[in-house]
Amino acid sequence: MFRFPSLVLSHHSRRRHFLLKLFSTTPQPLELPLSHPIYLIWGSNTAVGKTLVSAGLAASSVLSSPTKFIYLKPVQTGFPFDSDSRFVFNKVDQLFLRRKPSITLCASDHVLYASAPAANAVFKSGESENCKLDMSELGLYEEKKLVGEGTGTSELICKTIYAWKEAVSPHLAAERESGSVRDTVVLETLQRCFRNALGVTEDKERSQVLCVVETAGGVASPGPSGSLQCDLYRPFRIPAILVGDGRLGGVSGTISAYESLTLRGYDVVAIVLEDHGLLNEFPLMSYLRNKVPVLVLPPVPKDPSNDLMEWFEDSHDVFSNLKEILLFAYSERSKKLHDMPRKAQDIFWWPFTQHKLVPEGGITLIDSRCGENFAVFKSQKEVITPLFDACASWWTQGPNATLQTELAREMGYAAGRFGHVMFPENVYEPAINCAELLLEGVGKGWASRAYFSDNGSTAIEIALKMAFRKFSVDHGLIPDIHKDKTTERCELMVLALKGSYHGDTLGAMEAQAPSSYTGFLQQPWYTGRGLFLDPPTVFMSKSKWNLSLTEGLLSEILKVDNITFASRDEIFHKGRDKSELATVYSSYISDLLSGYTGFTHVGALILEPVIQASGGMHMVDPLFQRVLVNECRSRKIPVIFDEVFTGFWRLGVETVVELIHCVPDIACFGKLMTGGIIPLAATLATNAVFDSFIGDSKLKALLHGHSYSAHAMGCMAAAKSIQWFKDPCSNPNITAEGRLLRELWDDKLVHQISSLPAVQRVITLGTLFALELEAEGNNAGYGSLYARTLLQNLREDGIFMRPLGNVIYLMSGPCTSPEICSQLLIKLYGRLEEFSGSK
Amino acid sequence: MFRFPSLVLSHHSRRRHFLLKLFSTTPQPLELPLSHPIYLIWGSNTAVGKTLVSAGLAASSVLSSPTKFIYLKPVQTGFPFDSDSRFVFNKVDQLFLRRKPSITLCASDHVLYASAPAANAVFKSGESENCKLDMSELGLYEEKKLVGEGTGTSELICKTIYAWKEAVSPHLAAERESGSVRDTVVLETLQRCFRNALGVTEDKERSQVLCVVETAGGVASPGPSGSLQCDLYRPFRIPAILVGDGRLGGVSGTISAYESLTLRGYDVVAIVLEDHGLLNEFPLMSYLRNKVPVLVLPPVPKDPSNDLMEWFEDSHDVFSNLKEILLFAYSERSKKLHDMPRKAQDIFWWPFTQHKLVPEGGITLIDSRCGENFAVFKSQKEVITPLFDACASWWTQGPNATLQTELAREMGYAAGRFGHVMFPENVYEPAINCAELLLEGVGKGWASRAYFSDNGSTAIEIALKMAFRKFSVDHGLIPDIHKDKTTERCELMVLALKGSYHGDTLGAMEAQAPSSYTGFLQQPWYTGRGLFLDPPTVFMSKSKWNLSLTEGLLSEILKVDNITFASRDEIFHKGRDKSELATVYSSYISDLLSGYTGFTHVGALILEPVIQASGGMHMVDPLFQRVLVNECRSRKIPVIFDEVFTGFWRLGVETVVELIHCVPDIACFGKLMTGGIIPLAATLATNAVFDSFIGDSKLKALLHGHSYSAHAMGCMAAAKSIQWFKDPCSNPNITAEGRLLRELWDDKLVHQISSLPAVQRVITLGTLFALELEAEGNNAGYGSLYARTLLQNLREDGIFMRPLGNVIYLMSGPCTSPEICSQLLIKLYGRLEEFSGSK
Repeated sequence: MFRFPSLVLSHHSRRRHFLLKLFSTTPQPLELPLSHPIYLIWGSNTAVGKTLVSAGLAASSVLSSPTKFIYLKPVQTGFPFDSDSRFVFNKVDQLFLRRKPSITLCASDHVLYASAPAANAVFKSGESENCKLDMSELGLYEEKKLVGEGTGTSELICKTIYAWKEAVSPHLAAERESGSVRDTVVLETLQRCFRNALGVTEDKERSQVLCVVETAGGVASPGPSGSLQCDLYRPFRIPAILVGDGRLGGVSGTISAYESLTLRGYDVVAIVLEDHGLLNEFPLMSYLRNKVPVLVLPPVPKDPSNDLMEWFEDSHDVFSNLKEILLFAYSERSKKLHDMPRKAQDIFWWPFTQHKLVPEGGITLIDSRCGENFAVFKSQKEVITPLFDACASWWTQGPNATLQTELAREMGYAAGRFGHVMFPENVYEPAINCAELLLEGVGKGWASRAYFSDNGSTAIEIALKMAFRKFSVDHGLIPDIHKDKTTERCELMVLALKGSYHGDTLGAMEAQAPSSYTGFLQQPWYTGRGLFLDPPTVFMSKSKWNLSLTEGLLSEILKVDNITFASRDEIFHKGRDKSELATVYSSYISDLLSGYTGFTHVGALILEPVIQASGGMHMVDPLFQRVLVNECRSRKIPVIFDEVFTGFWRLGVETVVELIHCVPDIACFGKLMTGGIIPLAATLATNAVFDSFIGDSKLKALLHGHSYSAHAMGCMAAAKSIQWFKDPCSNPNITAEGRLLRELWDDKLVHQISSLPAVQRVITLGTLFALELEAEGNNAGYGSLYARTLLQNLREDGIFMRPLGNVIYLMSGPCTSPEICSQLLIKLYGRLEEFSGSK
Repeated sequence: MFRFPSLVLSHHSRRRHFLLKLFSTTPQPLELPLSHPIYLIWGSNTAVGKTLVSAGLAASSVLSSPTKFIYLKPVQTGFPFDSDSRFVFNKVDQLFLRRKPSITLCASDHVLYASAPAANAVFKSGESENCKLDMSELGLYEEKKLVGEGTGTSELICKTIYAWKEAVSPHLAAERESGSVRDTVVLETLQRCFRNALGVTEDKERSQVLCVVETAGGVASPGPSGSLQCDLYRPFRIPAILVGDGRLGGVSGTISAYESLTLRGYDVVAIVLEDHGLLNEFPLMSYLRNKVPVLVLPPVPKDPSNDLMEWFEDSHDVFSNLKEILLFAYSERSKKLHDMPRKAQDIFWWPFTQHKLVPEGGITLIDSRCGENFAVFKSQKEVITPLFDACASWWTQGPNATLQTELAREMGYAAGRFGHVMFPENVYEPAINCAELLLEGVGKGWASRAYFSDNGSTAIEIALKMAFRKFSVDHGLIPDIHKDKTTERCELMVLALKGSYHGDTLGAMEAQAPSSYTGFLQQPWYTGRGLFLDPPTVFMSKSKWNLSLTEGLLSEILKVDNITFASRDEIFHKGRDKSELATVYSSYISDLLSGYTGFTHVGALILEPVIQASGGMHMVDPLFQRVLVNECRSRKIPVIFDEVFTGFWRLGVETVVELIHCVPDIACFGKLMTGGIIPLAATLATNAVFDSFIGDSKLKALLHGHSYSAHAMGCMAAAKSIQWFKDPCSNPNITAEGRLLRELWDDKLVHQISSLPAVQRVITLGTLFALELEAEGNNAGYGSLYARTLLQNLREDGIFMRPLGNVIYLMSGPCTSPEICSQLLIKLYGRLEEFSGSK
């Protein structure tokens, strides 16, 4: 999949060892084949008959027509006394002998790995049981060929992947006998089994192959690492068969198990349960509203000496029925997956997308997300494969797989407890928790009030209304509401930076400089009500951090023409306030502002602090922004920070206030605030701003709101995520001091990339790595398709990126490990080398 | 609580019977006392020891200090052989005799209602067991006084509320022995028990009273009506103790049960489980991240002859610990509830709220929502009481309790499966399902494309951009993007109606006429880029439907001065197209539009079809709107319907297209679209509109998007709700034809209200009942506080309303029963009479 960048090796041989080491740790993607039906068999409790269902399904498949049936038991405890794969193997053989079908059956049972005690028990060796704490290859294999009279041949492959001796929960057995087995190792081995078993079945009809994976215990029983099994298998999201509980109390257990699966995004295709005479199927069907079929198996004889042959015969119709349901659900899913891209092209209207330029076959079908990865359907290969969501789904994403599950439960809780309830003049727990966390976190030290809305754009419109009111009050521009006269009418404009972006609604657009987004073609009502400055920017190029001064400023200072920094830290150092450059910035801005008196006022300063994201991932000189803030504050011009992109650890700090060492009067947050699960935005403000809306009339209040203001689910998600990201117990990237993320992007790799010929400049900060490709003419700018091939290739490497014209970027979550980030950089490096070569 | 309007009875005696009947069916609100701690005891399975926990808790309470302990078992099957309340009663007595505390204990056991077979079994009567299918009072009562040496007295009250004979699931027992018992009946009886037992404890310290309610079977076991118990008890949302399962597989069962409770908004305060030597507590604590304490009880002797005395002694510390946890959680909750309103006043900035006018104590604390009702904490009475959410939380709400639970599960699923994933150029199941349902539903017959955003306001901004582009293309106004010239620059404005409202972002504001919302004080950038017409409106007054013509029109037609309608249906009749009025409307509009040529163009028509909601619940003459649409269409002016308020059955039809018999080119939806659980909006458009954005350049695409475009959770909620509302199986209000809701507001009551002197006009349509109070001067208009007292009184009656100045309204969900709507109207009638009297 990933081709190692050979040039790196020859030209930079010192780096060879380092890169090789990183490369060797790059895990293979966990692909799930969809060429044939695969199902996970779950139990709503232990001992509800999962293995009977597996055996019944196996028999009804291989004994009725030429079929390949694959039974996998990834985790077996109590081995060798208990072996579900051997049970399936034996029962099907017995049923063959009983039924004497015309088919020939080749059956095998194979145990792949076992703990030392389990292995010793098999071979009856007297070795000490604690000799090694690891799983070792067991290679226990048995096969049979049972010849029928006809010509067809069926194949039954039974496999136990990991076996432990003690008949306890896998996490305990593993702890005691082998040490824990990591989840990814279990999944990788499982994937190998899929490949081995299904890879050679291309000649078979889809309906002639069926694979089931049987879990151990109940849906939320711990696996060998201690992860709950429903979490362990989640990356594959294999459709589920739930074996329910027909006993007294079994309705409850079955429903709860179903809900635990649902909460993790599994699709349950059928529920099967043993009849205990309690009619449990009826409340189940009623609960399921007939959307999931419920099948009832005859009572299982309790006499342990019973060979169950009669029972299997009695159950034959149920299993045939179940098999048909599974095949039908598989073909329906398959059909849906193949149809969806075409449908999407027919009925969606994607934002920021020229539909004419979306190539045939260029639509990505996302079957699910697990933490930072999409699970994407590839129709040619008929697999579901992970792609790292390196655009963080428009910069919203933060959760790893664990947080995603936690958030799912919180979302269920919030919906179950509140749904949505009215906000104004009311209070409810999630809203108060969220507001407190905002004020103690990103608003710490300056903000006193939280105003909620739905997205960054609305948060900005609210911020502008706040700022203008505050300015008007401070500068005596408030009209008399009782007279309703506009005699004192004046023009208010914003002070903003060129290249900034604050959202797509008209008010937010008016606060940004003219660009591709603002022309008559896009928004005929745009006029651009701002004084727009061209800010100085900083970036890394050829391994050096540079300052790029804009022309206006350059002409003023003359003497300085090439400023570089020893490190990124130097750029953010507060000591720069005393530099000559600070004085130059200050007088430049001061001159500019003194020009606005009379009818037209600069009523607000609005900034994206440090990084202008949509404008092309530009890092603005933080000193310049700090000077700007100070100059405005001294003139009583309210200051707005647009932290929609930058907030909540996107740049390695919870709020960029930590980086630029000055506070706003108003700040806007969105995107990552909810962890990236649901829209919610907040505009924070000082009490001084709030006070400018206080009065005796409702008409003086801020009359701006959206239907779902401070909706419970959003506030709950935000409260959870805010705490999760900043807590070192849940976020391993939080440094000891708790105010910074550790460095995620390998410094050496970053320097190396910045030195590639194809790369014009590089920016890294927090979760962001961005670079601008060298490009000229039509290849540069927002409309450019220049990066397309590069990104298509990176998609082959398992990275999903989206360009901003000739600017591309990688974005991790706040909890993503630096190792994963390095893997991304290495792949990018390789493709950039290739890209440079092709130009 | 509700005082019956006596005047109605005397003045309108014919209505007496009707009103009395309605009154008699008005249920008492289900209030939950918070004066003392109450807990629900749940089992993660049957036979995990719920009753042992109850008994242990009871003993550790009443035997250690003077305490009142109330044990309630609402549902008991297997009676009289099994009686959990008798078990608790007996065990505590036995423990008293063993421990000989210095306290005196008064203990009682009381069985309130029993099925005939259960009663017969108690009294050993030979009556036929099927003699009556109902629960009857049993009145089985037993009490004991056990005198200790000290002076203190403890009280143990054990109660079984409903008992059945057969030891099966309650729904089966009820079906066979008594007929089902309705959920509300169970809850009302339970509430009576709370009142009786807690009402006389005012002298006791809070920590000296503890009440537990023990459920039957597992958390999702069916109750006597067939509802799952976790749903049955949900309206009270009593904090939970979960008795976990210490056996093999018990980790899974306990976690799943916990998740089922969480999914319904319960707070689990502690988990207790019996030790089976499997260390199940460790994976549980790891899963719970130590946020819920897990307590482990010693193994219970399995010998049925064991009297468990030793076991209770061994468990003593665990139960003391549990009791402390419960008391602490109670006082924490209590503290939080009392603190929240003050905190809210300190840190929230509510939209549309003059904070200075929020009275001390005027903040509503919403503890939860269950279907159409808020559960509100009343600090003086220390109760949680239901309030009907008659403002539908800013017109967003649709779910009944069943749909809320369904949505909660869907939200968990969507978050677990997707979280949020990038939309442009991608496809995923919830988005495609939602888009299909939109186009087949509200967009049927005209729309071909779905554009997603976050709220009504953004949907409108998108719609305007679409309309202007379409208009510009059709009228040759497109500038050449390659030349980037603005030589052909022209002004585009909208045609809109006065009193309309389309949202609070600037673009949406520009499309509405000047109002309180648009002045310099609120939005200095507002200019009002529209041609705003004063539309004719219709309303009921003194029992008659009237048409109110605006002056401009009136002067043109002269002859007609007072148009009335026989019924509301007549207003919507398509036949009116042939009326003289239609011709008058048409020529009026035609004249107006012919005035716009040259530099300034009318580039779009934007309408709230039929009802202008925020503008004061005005019903615009549908004929006028239809004529307007036709006139614009004939001039190739794109037509936008703002259905954010009106869509999805708010007005009794899925889309107002059904009512006004004409289609738009673009329409906006939001609010009720997701069932009211989460923000999502959609702008639908024809393919002709879509095509005006197709070209070779990305810059020609619609460059407007929000981070969470088409977020999976919103699309999932919308898909579920859209289907739920229109399906007669889930929505009993859908008429047979499937295109209309049945009439929810009792016609006679509506007429009667419209005749009250305090009432100026009335509007009813679909889920909306609105009226304007007669008011003059400062009492009229949006800023008015005129209705405040009236609404405060209605809150005492259990109805939560919000005024629009002197306009007030009731709003139900699409599934709310007409009976509930009538109860609301009766209460409103009573208060309006009172209000008229006081003026």
